[in-house]
Amino acid sequence: MDYIKDPHEIERRSMALIAPYLTGMDFDEQQVKIVSRVIHAAGDPDYANHVQIHPDAVEAASAAIRRGADVYCDVEMVRTGISKKTLAQYGGQVHCLIADPAVALLAKEQGITRSMAAFRTFGHKMDGAIVAVGNAPTALFELFRLMQEENVRPAMVIGVPVGFVGAAESKEMLAEKSNAPYITVQGNKGGSPIAASIFNALLYMIGPKAE
Amino acid sequence: MDYIKDPHEIERRSMALIAPYLTGMDFDEQQVKIVSRVIHAAGDPDYANHVQIHPDAVEAASAAIRRGADVYCDVEMVRTGISKKTLAQYGGQVHCLIADPAVALLAKEQGITRSMAAFRTFGHKMDGAIVAVGNAPTALFELFRLMQEENVRPAMVIGVPVGFVGAAESKEMLAEKSNAPYITVQGNKGGSPIAASIFNALLYMIGPKAE
Repeated sequence: MDYIKDPHEIERRSMALIAPYLTGMDFDEQQVKIVSRVIHAAGDPDYANHVQIHPDAVEAASAAIRRGADVYCDVEMVRTGISKKTLAQYGGQVHCLIADPAVALLAKEQGITRSMAAFRTFGHKMDGAIVAVGNAPTALFELFRLMQEENVRPAMVIGVPVGFVGAAESKEMLAEKSNAPYITVQGNKGGSPIAASIFNALLYMIGPKAE
Repeated sequence: MDYIKDPHEIERRSMALIAPYLTGMDFDEQQVKIVSRVIHAAGDPDYANHVQIHPDAVEAASAAIRRGADVYCDVEMVRTGISKKTLAQYGGQVHCLIADPAVALLAKEQGITRSMAAFRTFGHKMDGAIVAVGNAPTALFELFRLMQEENVRPAMVIGVPVGFVGAAESKEMLAEKSNAPYITVQGNKGGSPIAASIFNALLYMIGPKAE
């Protein structure tokens, strides 16, 4: 069996194979890095046609990470996928309450999803933070309600929930009406690795903290 | 904002929206459940054209889970995505060594990926177990080598690594030459949620263990 076993070479070739899909598209250098990571995470070049990056998103995320902002996410798979070591160098932590018993109780009592209950519980803790929704449209809808009705102000939102019920609508709402810079993917596609790959692309651009 | 907040209703509608994509395709009832979960996890009906299910895969996985078999996976995101509570009722645990320091050292010494080194370390522990590869083609290549050269015998393999370097080839190899029943996805697409959704679909078919 002859195949490439060196991780750096796999990485280099992957990015070289992805590059042609982005030729001639309207992305700047930083945006190319983000979209490449997304295509890499999904094995799906079609993402190039659906990723939407707010012009202030990269700068807002970088500034937030550098000042030690935390990350709030909807599901554990997003938390698992995020490079926590580099984030921690800047002082940031990743939070997820989907498995919290109090959140499960709140969700059951109110007949809502656990990720919605989790975001309701986060509330103003998300002010100045980065929010990453990789799975649940209801979490993104609830975030939007918190922004509109309770003046919650995240520094930047990665909103890429996946699925056939509410995902496309929740992301359209984010792109049209968010008061925070965002990165999203139009349509049904998305998921935890997409959210994590976007966050990690932002983190790689900043790099590890100098000693 | 008017959207569906009840998780059971979201689930029901999602599956109803996915069903038409599978009409007229050559899947039996159990296979439809698996493919539906995959489409749901990716938000991408195109998976219906690429999922390959060995005729003995469902039965082999069910038998293994019922007798308390463990699950070995390549990355933490797969472990995170698997419904560990139901699995544990049958006595099964989920293993992942990607973050193990000894595995990192082995990988560095040998110039191979950490997931390859992890699978080499698992070795015969995978006999009779379920293996789930959701990210790294090199893990699937190494599993195949272990099966061929060292007679490692998993009960069933979920092989859905993602990407542009080796993913399609490793999955083609699995479908053509595996000595264990498998579920895979042809081409570049795949990923941790795909691996987890396949495993969870198998688990849902069995259901929780009777008291």
